Amino acid sequence: MNKQELVVAYRAYLDCLNRQDWANLGLFVHDAATHNGKLIGLAGYLQMLEGDFEAIPDLHFTIEGVISDPPFIASRLRFDCCPKGLFLGLPVNGKRVKFMENVFYEYADGKIKNVHSIVDKGMIEAQL
Amino acid sequence: MNKQELVVAYRAYLDCLNRQDWANLGLFVHDAATHNGKLIGLAGYLQMLEGDFEAIPDLHFTIEGVISDPPFIASRLRFDCCPKGLFLGLPVNGKRVKFMENVFYEYADGKIKNVHSIVDKGMIEAQL
Repeated sequence: MNKQELVVAYRAYLDCLNRQDWANLGLFVHDAATHNGKLIGLAGYLQMLEGDFEAIPDLHFTIEGVISDPPFIASRLRFDCCPKGLFLGLPVNGKRVKFMENVFYEYADGKIKNVHSIVDKGMIEAQL
Repeated sequence: MNKQELVVAYRAYLDCLNRQDWANLGLFVHDAATHNGKLIGLAGYLQMLEGDFEAIPDLHFTIEGVISDPPFIASRLRFDCCPKGLFLGLPVNGKRVKFMENVFYEYADGKIKNVHSIVDKGMIEAQL
């Protein structure tokens, strides 16, 4: 994929997440996906996302900016949502919080293979 | 700057930080620099870095990966250091900790203008 195709594929992936269209997650995520250095595979990736939506029923991924340099893409994601209970170990308990995630992806075989993500925990703490 | 020139300029910026060569910081950082949405300027940027090295005497910036898409560059930075006291509100107190920072930069006029940074606070907490 060239630079623009990678952005298009990445936006389609986030649309898939926002629709919770788990039947099609395998179109975007590699069977041997890793997350922060840990091999979780497609099944583990799905489990992680299902857990995220269970913990945050109104979860929605919004792109603040992307940087595309195939096979890598980096994204600043913005969230505005109400995590139900503990989130990242913090007692959010349904309060509405806004926070950012800076995340790097490496694609292989046209799919997301390696993800390195950091959520801004301090930004959430400051709102509690 | 093209993609490769941007990477070279960025590496030179980190070398400047690692040398604590504050006299030359203005070669790399814009007079109107912002950090996480706040206008701090070159003077504020210098003050922030001096504070970082005061809090972490053995601070060293190591690149784990960069994604270049002019005028943007994103970097995964790795740290292995001993913050003296409180760090990000955490009582590190000289313990050696390893952590990552995912950071996005926008260049203007050949210099770093807008920075969006997230340090992995949870990764540090897990080591305390």
